[in-house]
Formats: sequence, structure tokens, C-alpha cells
Amino acid sequence: MSTRSRGRPRVDSARPETRTAILTAAREIFAERGFERTTMRAIASRAGVDAALIHHYFGTKDTLTVEALRPDIDPAAVFRGLTVDTPGLGTVFVTRVLTVWENDVPQRERGTALLRIAVTHDPVAERMRTFFFGLARHVLGDMAADDDRDLRIALIASHILGILMMRYVLRLPEIADADIATLAGRVGPVIEQYLTGPPGSPVE
Amino acid sequence: MSTRSRGRPRVDSARPETRTAILTAAREIFAERGFERTTMRAIASRAGVDAALIHHYFGTKDTLTVEALRPDIDPAAVFRGLTVDTPGLGTVFVTRVLTVWENDVPQRERGTALLRIAVTHDPVAERMRTFFFGLARHVLGDMAADDDRDLRIALIASHILGILMMRYVLRLPEIADADIATLAGRVGPVIEQYLTGPPGSPVE
Repeated sequence: MSTRSRGRPRVDSARPETRTAILTAAREIFAERGFERTTMRAIASRAGVDAALIHHYFGTKDTLTVEALRPDIDPAAVFRGLTVDTPGLGTVFVTRVLTVWENDVPQRERGTALLRIAVTHDPVAERMRTFFFGLARHVLGDMAADDDRDLRIALIASHILGILMMRYVLRLPEIADADIATLAGRVGPVIEQYLTGPPGSPVE
Repeated sequence: MSTRSRGRPRVDSARPETRTAILTAAREIFAERGFERTTMRAIASRAGVDAALIHHYFGTKDTLTVEALRPDIDPAAVFRGLTVDTPGLGTVFVTRVLTVWENDVPQRERGTALLRIAVTHDPVAERMRTFFFGLARHVLGDMAADDDRDLRIALIASHILGILMMRYVLRLPEIADADIATLAGRVGPVIEQYLTGPPGSPVE
């Protein structure tokens, strides 16, 4: 490492292998000990770096938590080709979201671990909702109607969150055991309603 | 207390003041120490009863947790008069759900405390989802279409859970700061779709 006497470099400027080592160590120790009992010092020790370096690159434990546990998916790949003109847009969207969560177990475990921490730690909740809402806006922003676009996207994010919670965390059998196609067929039209329907319009 | 030498009496058969003292002590100690560090012994001590009595009435800590923290609302009062013929049924339903959560702070705090525990403790999650799904079925069962009734109700429960999570736990501003009327106007038609719409039908 070159010596830096002042200023915090952007996380991206860390040497990639150092960054990866820190994030891997963080994931392991969060999984072993839970969030509360994980210390920056323990992560540093596991990663073979100085604790000050972690603070230097990632700031607080809250920031590191979200960075380590946010699912590492490529939204451009998952949602490739979706536009407001895609037939059955909502159903396709829900199918792709659920398929990723269903099949990519390591990423799902990260996401649920992050959610579990967020519900009891407000600073993590704040960073997590910023990340996920930003992702939803990135994916859906162009497809949502102009009026109240952010509310439309927030309603979709809320509904998807509820489905993921019921399926993968609380495990309500009616949701947890349903086929993805069944769920997508029901939830998809609702997503379209939120994206492009008139505000507050009745669903017929 | 009369002496019982065998069998576990129904919780309801506990003397009401003993039962209340135990539940009050449990709520206080959960709030003070968190779920992990709360012991049946500490609850017993606070309530002035023997720990064996708590086990006798409530069984495990998981069962006592749900019993102590489930919101104490009267669904018959909250949802009085709602039928499948109520104009704007979904909007009225969402308005009433959100109004209770918004205004009855002690009950909301119980519900969010229970949710926080459930996301990290599967046995509590199981009891919680059974309780809430039972409540949803009690309130909505008569209004949902016959086909896939339980799936319809589970989808509604999932969506409401997502909205409550975003508004009161993760505090996404678009949901947390919205008027109840605005949210109910958007979410209500979706609830009606889930209740009575054709399965998988597109929303126009």
C-alpha cells in the first residue's frame, strides 16, 4: 500500500484483492458471530490487514455491512430487454426477481442476512433502503409513469419486499411453497398497475 | 392457584391477573434487554411468580413472546361493516389497517418488536405467521373468491407486511411520509384485485 496521510480514498480505489479480502472476512464473521458480536478488529485480523485500513476504506461498520452483504447481482443482466412495451412486463419482472432469489443461494443468503440486520439497526436500514430503492429506480425508472414516479417505485419495492419476506424469511407456506409462475402471474399485473396505472384507480 | 398435578391448562385458564402480570413483565424485559438476553426466570421474578408457572401456562419462550407482543387489537372493531359489497372495499381496508398502525403506538411497537424477533428466530416466525395469517383469514376469508382463497389472502398479507415494513421499520421516505389516504388509494385497488380478481389476470 502506498502511504496516504490525509483524506479517505474512494472504496473503489482500494487494491481489489485487499477489498475482496476484507469483504470476504466480514461475511464470514457476520455469519459466525452475528452482527452485534462482529468487530472491525476481528474482520481486520481475518483479512490480514490493519483495522485502521478498513475504517479508511469503508468508514463505519454499518457501511461495511451493507457493502459486504448487499447481493452482488448485475441488474443489467437480470432485467435485460425489459421495457414498458414488453408484453406481460410485470409478470416477466416478478419472474426474474424471484428466479434470481430462488436460484442464487449465496446472494439470497446475503440479502436475507442484510435484511435481518437492517430491521434492528436503523443506520443499516437507512443504507440498505437507499441501496435497494436506488436499484429499483435504476431498473424501473424508465418504465414508470411520470406522475409520482418515486411513489410508484416505492410501492413496487414494498410489495416485492413483502413477498421475499414471506417466501424466504417468515416462510408462510402459501407463498414459500408456491411456484414462481403462480406468484408471478398474480403479482405481475399488480406491478404493472403500480408502474403505469392511473393513481388510485380501481382495478377491474 | 389450585394445584394441578398433570397436563397443561389452556393459557386462558390462568387467573387473569397472573396472566397479565406475566405478559407485562415479559414486554418490559424484552424491551429492556432484547429477546436474546431475556430469560423466563427474569420474567418470573419481575411478575412475582415461579418460573415453572410461566412454562406451565405459556410453554416455551417463543410462545410467550408471540403472546406478549402480538398486537392486542379487536379485528371485529377495526374491520366492522366491511363486506365484499363495500364500495371501495380495498381502499377502506387499507385505510383501517394503516390508521390502527399509525395511531395506536403501543400496539405498533409490539408488532414491530415481534417482527424484529421473528426475522431472526424461526420458531417465533412460525408462530407469528400463523397468528397473522389466521387473523387475515378471519378478516378477509368471507370476502375472497373461492378459488385459491388462501393464496389470495397470503398475497394480501405479503403486500401489507411490505408496506408496514417500509413505513415503520425501514422508513423508506416515499412510504413513511405518504398520507394514509394516498397509500390507501394506490394499494386498495390491488387488495381488491387479490380478493376477487381472476387469478393471474392482467390489470388494465
